[in-house]
This record gives sequence, C-alpha cells and structure tokens, in this order.
Amino acid sequence: MVLRWGCPRLPTAEEMMSDLKVGLDTMWVVITAFLVFFMNAGFCMLETGFCRYKNAVNVLAKNLIVFALSTIAFWVIGFGLMFGDGTPFFGFNGWFLSGADNSPATADTYQGVFSALNWAGVPLAAKFFFQLVFAGTAATIVSGAVAERIKFVDFLIFSLLLVGISYPITGHWIWGGGWLADVGFWDFAGSTVVHSVGGWAALMGAAFLGPRMGRFIERDGAVAMPGHNMAIATLGCLILWLGWFGFNPGSTMAADPNAITHIILTTNTAAAFGGVAATITAWAYLGKPDLSMIINGILAGLVAVTAPCAFVSLPWAALIGAIGGIIVVFSVTFFDKLKIDDPVGAISVHLVNGIWGTLAVGLFAAGPDVYSWYTADLGPARGLFLGGGLGQVGSQLLGILSVGGFTVLFSTVVWLILKAAGGIRVSPEEEFAGLDVGEHGMEAYSGFLKEDVK
Amino acid sequence: MVLRWGCPRLPTAEEMMSDLKVGLDTMWVVITAFLVFFMNAGFCMLETGFCRYKNAVNVLAKNLIVFALSTIAFWVIGFGLMFGDGTPFFGFNGWFLSGADNSPATADTYQGVFSALNWAGVPLAAKFFFQLVFAGTAATIVSGAVAERIKFVDFLIFSLLLVGISYPITGHWIWGGGWLADVGFWDFAGSTVVHSVGGWAALMGAAFLGPRMGRFIERDGAVAMPGHNMAIATLGCLILWLGWFGFNPGSTMAADPNAITHIILTTNTAAAFGGVAATITAWAYLGKPDLSMIINGILAGLVAVTAPCAFVSLPWAALIGAIGGIIVVFSVTFFDKLKIDDPVGAISVHLVNGIWGTLAVGLFAAGPDVYSWYTADLGPARGLFLGGGLGQVGSQLLGILSVGGFTVLFSTVVWLILKAAGGIRVSPEEEFAGLDVGEHGMEAYSGFLKEDVK
Amino acid sequence: MVLRWGCPRLPTAEEMMSDLKVGLDTMWVVITAFLVFFMNAGFCMLETGFCRYKNAVNVLAKNLIVFALSTIAFWVIGFGLMFGDGTPFFGFNGWFLSGADNSPATADTYQGVFSALNWAGVPLAAKFFFQLVFAGTAATIVSGAVAERIKFVDFLIFSLLLVGISYPITGHWIWGGGWLADVGFWDFAGSTVVHSVGGWAALMGAAFLGPRMGRFIERDGAVAMPGHNMAIATLGCLILWLGWFGFNPGSTMAADPNAITHIILTTNTAAAFGGVAATITAWAYLGKPDLSMIINGILAGLVAVTAPCAFVSLPWAALIGAIGGIIVVFSVTFFDKLKIDDPVGAISVHLVNGIWGTLAVGLFAAGPDVYSWYTADLGPARGLFLGGGLGQVGSQLLGILSVGGFTVLFSTVVWLILKAAGGIRVSPEEEFAGLDVGEHGMEAYSGFLKEDVK
Repeated sequence: MVLRWGCPRLPTAEEMMSDLKVGLDTMWVVITAFLVFFMNAGFCMLETGFCRYKNAVNVLAKNLIVFALSTIAFWVIGFGLMFGDGTPFFGFNGWFLSGADNSPATADTYQGVFSALNWAGVPLAAKFFFQLVFAGTAATIVSGAVAERIKFVDFLIFSLLLVGISYPITGHWIWGGGWLADVGFWDFAGSTVVHSVGGWAALMGAAFLGPRMGRFIERDGAVAMPGHNMAIATLGCLILWLGWFGFNPGSTMAADPNAITHIILTTNTAAAFGGVAATITAWAYLGKPDLSMIINGILAGLVAVTAPCAFVSLPWAALIGAIGGIIVVFSVTFFDKLKIDDPVGAISVHLVNGIWGTLAVGLFAAGPDVYSWYTADLGPARGLFLGGGLGQVGSQLLGILSVGGFTVLFSTVVWLILKAAGGIRVSPEEEFAGLDVGEHGMEAYSGFLKEDVK
Repeated sequence: MVLRWGCPRLPTAEEMMSDLKVGLDTMWVVITAFLVFFMNAGFCMLETGFCRYKNAVNVLAKNLIVFALSTIAFWVIGFGLMFGDGTPFFGFNGWFLSGADNSPATADTYQGVFSALNWAGVPLAAKFFFQLVFAGTAATIVSGAVAERIKFVDFLIFSLLLVGISYPITGHWIWGGGWLADVGFWDFAGSTVVHSVGGWAALMGAAFLGPRMGRFIERDGAVAMPGHNMAIATLGCLILWLGWFGFNPGSTMAADPNAITHIILTTNTAAAFGGVAATITAWAYLGKPDLSMIINGILAGLVAVTAPCAFVSLPWAALIGAIGGIIVVFSVTFFDKLKIDDPVGAISVHLVNGIWGTLAVGLFAAGPDVYSWYTADLGPARGLFLGGGLGQVGSQLLGILSVGGFTVLFSTVVWLILKAAGGIRVSPEEEFAGLDVGEHGMEAYSGFLKEDVK
Repeated sequence: MVLRWGCPRLPTAEEMMSDLKVGLDTMWVVITAFLVFFMNAGFCMLETGFCRYKNAVNVLAKNLIVFALSTIAFWVIGFGLMFGDGTPFFGFNGWFLSGADNSPATADTYQGVFSALNWAGVPLAAKFFFQLVFAGTAATIVSGAVAERIKFVDFLIFSLLLVGISYPITGHWIWGGGWLADVGFWDFAGSTVVHSVGGWAALMGAAFLGPRMGRFIERDGAVAMPGHNMAIATLGCLILWLGWFGFNPGSTMAADPNAITHIILTTNTAAAFGGVAATITAWAYLGKPDLSMIINGILAGLVAVTAPCAFVSLPWAALIGAIGGIIVVFSVTFFDKLKIDDPVGAISVHLVNGIWGTLAVGLFAAGPDVYSWYTADLGPARGLFLGGGLGQVGSQLLGILSVGGFTVLFSTVVWLILKAAGGIRVSPEEEFAGLDVGEHGMEAYSGFLKEDVK
C-alpha cells in the first residue's frame, strides 16, 4: 500500500503524518483558491449586469482579460515585491517565482527567499496561486467603477501596474512582513490589503474619468442609469458570496478545523446581516426593497467582515455586517451627491466597507487566547468595545491611512500619465453609441431589439 | 515541522492521526456545504428563468434574500429546535448556537447539548453550517411555486417561520433524534426532511394564492406562460446538479471514501436516468423534447434519490431516477388539471418526488451490512423488492404522512394569518404590470424592448 | 475517538494512515471531478451564447441531456471498453461497473479487472466518476460545432456512440494500458484523449452537415453570424477555466501536494498567456480586441497545456499557451476559408490546440526526475527543445495520427449511416425559423422583441 506521494523509500510514521498534513493543508489552500478565482465570474456578471447593454461586451472583456494580465504581472514581478525578502517597504526577491525555497518546510526549518510566508506548510506553488487570485480581485474591483467610459487599453495598463506594483507594495507592508505588520496592524483576509486598495484605485479612476454623459445633468440629483441584466447581476452576487468562503477561511492557509469553520460562520453571518440590513434601510429610505441594494448590502457585509473574520465572535460579526449593509445604502447616495459616478457601487462596497471592516478589528476583536488559532503574536489586541483600549484602533487607522495614501498617490500618478498620453476616456460619440461597437466591434445581445441608445 | 493545527505541545501519534481525520472530515463537510450553498444560485436562476420577464427582479430578490433570512432564523432558533437536546418532538437547547459542546469529540466522549449530532466528528460550527445550507434549501423551494403573484413581505415572513420553526421541528423528528428516528424511518439526505417539507409548503402557498391571472381561463386546460430566459434556467439546473454532489454525499458528514463515492454515483445516475426518462416521456406524451421537462426530469431524479442514495445499489438508483423522471411529466399536467398554479414545477419536483424517493427506501434498500457504512443501526431494513417485507415501507409511509400533515397544518395556519392580515397577493393591477415595478421599483432588463405585458 | 471510517475493530497505525491517505486522495479526485462536471455548465453557456437566439433552446437542451446520456453509455459499456482488462486495442471487462475490484488497493496488491487504473489508491467508484466526467466532455465539444442545424435526435445518437464506443477505444490505447501507452505516447490530462477526439468528431460533423444557410454566400469570405448572448458566453469561459483546475490537476488521481500545485500553475499560466496572446493577435490582425477571440484564446491555452501540464516548467507552459492563443485566431479564419462552419470555434480550440498540446509534450517535456512525480516510467522522454531528440515527438505524432484516424473513420461511418437513415440536418424552413420552435416547440427568451429571424 502506497503511503507517500512520489517517495520511493519507506517513510517513518512522523514523515507520513507530516505528509498527510501537508496534503490536507495544500488541498484546502488550492480549493479555496479555486473559489476565489471563481469570484472573477462573480465580478464579471455583477458589473456587466449593473451596466447598460451597449457596454456589456466591454465590461465582460475587461473582467475576463484582467485575470490573465494579473497572472502575468504577479508572476513576473508582483509576488516578488509582495512576499520576497527585502526591506520593510517592498520585497526584491523571487521574480518569476524563482529563488531558493524549501516549502512546505515551515518556521525555523524554512530556507528560502519568501520568509514572510514561511508559516504556511504548503508548497510554494500553492502560496503563489492563492496570493495570485487575491491580487486579481483588486483589479476587478476597479473595473466596475470606471465602466462605460474608459478606454479598453488604458484599463489594461492600469490593471497591470496595480497588480504588478502598487498592490504588492502595500500588501508587503501588511502580509509580507513589512512595517505595518511590525506596528501591529491586522487585516486577516484583506479588507484593506485587497478591497480598500481596489476601492481607492477605483475612486481615483472614477474621479479622473468624470461621470458618464448625462448622469448628473439634473439640478437635484443623479439620473438613474439602471443595469441591463439583473439576473446575471444577482448570479454574480451569489458567486461572490460563494467565493468569499474561499477568500476568508482560505486565508488560514491550513485546514485547521476550528479556525476555518469559525471563519465560515462569521463570514456568512455578516453577509446575511448585511443583506437584511441593506434591504430594510433601502425600504425605509428609498421606499422599495431595491434589488441592487440587497446585492450591495450582502457584498458590503462580506467586505467588512474580511479583516476581522478570524478575530471576532459571531454576534459581533452580525453587527459588523449589519452596519456594513446600512453604510452601503447611504454611501451610494453620498457619492452620487459628490458627482463621483460609480456604475456598480464598487467604491461604497469595497472602499467604504473595507475601511469599516479594518476599523472593526480594533473595535470588536476578541483578544488573544479566546480562540485556539488566535494567540498574542497571531492576532490583534482586544478590541475597544471589549475593553481593550484605543491602541489597536490606532494601529488600524494608521494602516488605513498609509495604504490609502500610497494607493491614491500611485493611482493619481498613473491615471494622470495615461490621461496625458492620449486620454483615458472614449470619445463622446463612442460613449453615446456604446463601447461595445467602438472598442470591440461587436454587440452583446445580437438579434434582440433594444431601445435607442441614450 | 508543525504536525498539529494550533497546538503548542508535542502531540502523540494517535492525537495527530485523530486531528488529521477531523481535519479531513471537516474539509469534506464544509466543501460539500459550499456546494449546497451554491444551490441558492441554482434555484435563483432556475426559478427566474421559468418566470416571465416582468417578475424577474422579484424572483431574484426573493431567492437572494431568503438565504440571508434563513441564516438568521436558523442561528437564532432553528438549529436549537432541530438538533438541541429536548423532547422527541422538538429540541429546546442551543439558541444562538450557544450551550456546551465539545465537538469534534464523538459518541461517548461527546458532552454537550447537541447529542443528536454527536456521531459527526467535526466542530460544531461545521455541523451548523452544513445544516443551515440545508434549511435554506427548503425555503427556496417555496419561492418558485408562489412566484409572480405573492407580496414580497409575505414571502419573507413565511420563509422566516418555515426555516425558523416548521422545518426544524419535523427535522428534529428524523435527524434530531426524535420520534420518527425511533420508529425506524430513514431519509438519508432529505427527500422528506428538506424537499417534501418545502414542497408541502409550496403546495399550500400556491393553493392559498390561487393561480396567476389568465392561467386557467380556457375551458380545457391551462394557458402556457412560458419562462422568459431558458439559458439561465438551464444554468440553474446544472448548478443544482452540481450542488447535489454536496447535498447527498456531504450528508455522511465524514470523508469515508467508499460511502461518498457510492453516493456520488447513485446521485448522478438517478439524475441521468431522470433526465432521459423525462425527455422520452415528454417526447411521447407532449410531442416534443421539452427543455423544461428535461430540466425537471433531472431534478426529479435528484430529489427522488436523496433519501435512498446511501442505501441502494446503482441499478436501483437508475430505476428510482427513471421513475422520478416519468412521474414529474405527468405530475405537472396533473396539478394543471387541479388548477394549482406552480410556475416552475416545484411541487412536482420536490413534493411528489420527495415522497417517491422516501418510499423508495422501503422498496429498494439493500439491507444492512451490504455496504460498510450501512449497518443495522445506521440504515433501514432491507427493501420490499429485495425480500425485506412491508415493515420499512410502513415506517416510510408514517414519516411521509406525519411530516406532511404537520407541514400542511403549519403552512395553512401561517398563510391564513397572513391572508387575514392584509392579504398575501399583490393587486391585479400590479400583477398585470409585473411585480418588478410594483414591489421593487425597477425592471430586470432595462433597455430591451419587450412585448406588452400580458 | 473514532479513527477509522466504518471500521469496528481497532486499526493499526499504518492502517490508519493508509486510510487517511485514501480519504485525502479520494476527496481530491471527487472534488476535481465536480469541477469537471461543472464544465458542462461552461460548455452549455459558451455554446449557447455564441449561437443565435432562435437556436438557444436547442443548444441548451443538447448540452444538458448529453451528460445524462454519457452517464448511461459510459456506465453500461464505455468504462469497460476503456479501462477493463482486455487487449491492447480495447477492454472487455467491467460492463455496468461489475467485475472483481479491490480498490483502493494498488499496484501488486490490486486484484480486479481494471488493472490499468490500479495505480490510483481510491475506490473504484471514484475512478469511474472521474473518468465519466471526462468522457462527457468529449461529447459536449461536438455539440458546439454542429449547432444551429443538426437534428436533435441525431446528435443524441451520435453522442451515445461517441461516449459509449469511440472515445473509450482510443482512450484505452492511451490511458487503459493499450498499445499507445506501450510505445511511450504521453498525454497527461487529455489534449488528445479528450479534446482532439471531440474535435475530430466535431470536424466531421460540421463537414457532413455543411454550413448554416447564408454563412458562405459572399464571394470573399464568411458572413458573420454573431452570438446572441456574450454575457453567458463569457460566464461559460470562466466556468471552463475553473473546471480545468479539476481537469488537469485532478488527473493525478492523488492529492500529491507538489504535483497538483505545479499543474495548477502551468494550467493557469497557459490560460493567461493564451488569452493575452489571442487578444493581441486579434487586435493586430482583425483590428479590434474581439471578445470571442479572448474567450477562445483562453480556452486554446487550456486545451494546449492539458497534455504537457505535469511535464513542463512554468515558462514553457507560458509559451505553449501563448502559441495556442495565436494559433486559434488564425485557425478560426482558416476553417472559414475552408467553408467548414463551426459556430463556436470548437474545432480550432479543441482539435487544433489538442494536437498542438500533444506535440508540445515532445518539444518541452522537462525529462524524468526533474519533478518528484515524473520519473522515467511515469512520463515522457526529455523534449526536443531541451535536448531530448526527436524520439518523443515521433511517439506523440504517432498518437495524434492514430487517434485522429480512428476517430475520423468512426465518425464518418456514424454520420453517414445517420445521414442515410433520414438525414442529420433539419429542414431549411426549420433552420430559417430556428430549431427552438421546430425541435422543441418553445423559445428561449419569451416576451422579448427580436429582429426577424434571418
């Protein structure tokens, strides 16, 4: 009976058990990574459904190609910048996934150039793939906010730079053993690392692009530009909800039964309370249970719980999600008032709730040794509302501001350069007629009769 | 090399192996739970696609929010009613998932208030999450049958009560160590516990609501109201088929290799034979291979094999599925004749085939000790057609009738109260114009030209 | 504490560890099989979206029922022909999955009639299910190429014969211990076994059917017949990409951490480079970044890397994918010039890139002992471009030609018999009006206004 994968000699009992544990943890990491990969389909359907039919091909194409570009950028440079050994500010080892690495060896037995990931007892390829699908998420967030008016090529260039350079640098600060990790900033699965970063970049993109034609022509508010396909948007939301069961519990990078099941529950509970809170808020505030608000409420709860999911108890997770669901409704209105045009609500979902979730760590963290996986060196100090003082809140604020500052700066520079070099926005004629024909020479729903473009 | 998750001291070999087994079983339970969760997307696409475009937002919104509501209801009260220690008729422990529990300890070493689940060696959070996604399924079944005419708020209230109270009570009888378990009623993965319960509630909802306007105006039969999007309906069917690979084999709550792979095969085979049998039946009986019948035939096979999947051999699973596929075609016609209007065929799929599958346990069960996981105390007596006598059939009938009786009673009371308190049906004007505008203030496919509503 | 699934006596430590490994490997096999199963949804959405609205129900119905038929055909005869003990040309044991088999026992301890799979330490049911979902893929490939004009019943008959007889025979040569395995032909996950076979059958089907009406009426080229729903087509592509994470790494049939994570990376990298290369090629060659080319470029990369995924390093995988993405753009044009009408590009994706990927094994294989899972008897000789000589290229060519020859011959005979027996093509009137009404008596998007059929 074969007791080891690919091993010719007879292993010892300890080797066998170690192998089995590596196998189990690896399987967990890659399966959760598959779920996160599938979030590309979720974002793709969500963003496309929320846009108008005349730009559907463009949104689909952006969301499809962006993970391909992310794969290349993160392989070539991003992973090395983020997790390669280097300075507290960025890594500079491991381009093209090269360099020494004896994973799945861990801790003191680890020898290689990706020390920041030496705690995870899985092969390097598993670590890379899991981090890659996260990196891809950041770029897809931008896609929605800049939809219906950005030039295809400029989105591709921005995405390459975001995933190849900006995201890995701020990610290095937090997950790559950088300076924010040193000051005690905690973000379990990426409310800041992934969602706020994508959200800041989205905000700057939407701001530099300006609103869609006709969006803010009325005196007292925005003109609604309803999505063209709520069926696929809702499908997208459910795919994203599923994907979050990879995103959060997979961030353990190990199949620790207690940790992963606790995180699954906090994640799901926050989503549920976010959805219900947004429904009620929208019903009371807007008069109807608006489907797009239900969708964004669920996503808001998920984004918010992403940072604290491993550190809070179930009732706090419910509260974090509920507040996220309420915030998102008002935030969408708020950005409309600012005349920042975000066709899918990406800024409200990912940026605003990414900030909220990151802060929530400082407010509601259970404190070390309540849970087996959360010891003093593997998690934040006790939260403010559990009697833990303001220290953790301060660290969280520092992280939010510094990551936000860097991402805003980086995005501004890139958007301005792209704007100078030919402009980032399609022509008014193309925008009016739809980007599908202008940018791609095809339409999404051939054979169907549609209203005249407007 | 770390050999244990979150354990500071050196574990013994037995502890290590036990940990690995708990890790493996937990991973199986949560991954299959993810698949069952994803069935929400399946039901959402299926039901929306089968309805008319003017009600699409409403069906989408119902299917999306219902799992959020289920999460809350099942956490607060449902799980305690269903699995908490108590009487043979309901549990009364474990509200909000509280109370003692030393899972993953099992059997005699288990100490806690959820004794009915002490056989499963996974953390309590895993047990809860797996049972939660099942509970959510019951409510989504109702959604389809009451579509295109129910008030949004009444559906929400009914779902909360179904998932919070009714489903857990009858579930307690069978899976919670209650009186039906004691009399030897067996339902492996929920033909009765989940599907019939949803189906009975759906039947009562459809009956109390009455048919959609114009559905039965002709003398000799029903007016067809074709679904508006067969593409997403078919996608929904395939997602559900996938989800059933979580639903049935996940119900082992352990990664027993022989059990789960056998169940995967019986499940898949029944689906295949259900689909082919329904295709042939529809072709012969209705003249064309109707796509909605292919879809419902596959689902019928899946529902039917849910109860017996672990207890029957592959050829019997094929027969069970094939009969399910034939039944569903005639059942749809039958309910049309009764003027029970079920826009998606949910009653025929879930109720009728839930009953058929539950009975099939009594007819075709292999009997104890044929399979390693199916011993005398872990499964039904040998089935009637394998020489086992009528005893098991009798137990199955008792379960079908008692669960049906309770659910019909409960549903009737709730629907009547809701009807008295303002009515459960939208106004004729709103129904005519579509619930999307009336209930949600938006339409699903903005920009597309449609036929005038009718 | 229970240490064994379904075992009454106390097991030894070695038994326990062996059980855990079987459990782990089985879980990997079935979960990756679920992903491959889900590719049915991917193909279904992709092919439907690429066709015209008037044939959507027909394409959906074909893609839905074909896996049901595959299940039956492969259970009854296919699996026995492919993996049952027999001759070097076909197996003749194990019909209906019967016959001795003591899996998960492996190698010398294996006793049974499926010797060709005795290396996999998982239950027979797991082996069957994994192989079944592969077999199903071959038939779905055909579906796209013959879409919009084939009679429903003829497609069903052809699929049954392809999955029941032709695919298993050529599969036996390679994976069933047949003569191609003996001569050193290697195809890790099925560029030839699955994709080329489906592609050859598709080519012959498209050729015998002839082009859709009006497709090649112009002097200088093809008339574009754009797909009706690019949203679901893109969703289909992403589902297929996800499914490939089952297809390729699952083909290890064991959860070997290093092997599966390496294969995940080669697979994903080839997809990314395929997509980007096709985008650039289409942009340069056709003038626009055509979405259908992005989609087909990704799929081309995936098909191409399927054979070599376990045998090549990451940079070569990138090159294999990139070349696949370039090939597919020109191949689509090429078949248009030949007036072979393939509505979805299935021949260019699966046949042409299946051949390319199979050859790539001979060009880029790393050679034995570079990777732990790839020893001299478990993989090809070093590739030509790594200094390995022409030997492996020759074996690969022999495999491509012999499998292609057999499949062409078999398909030709079947298509000709079907053509003689009533014709395989719907009437011109039905084709003009759409197959949905003609074959199925329903339409896919009821209530939407469409352009007149053309």
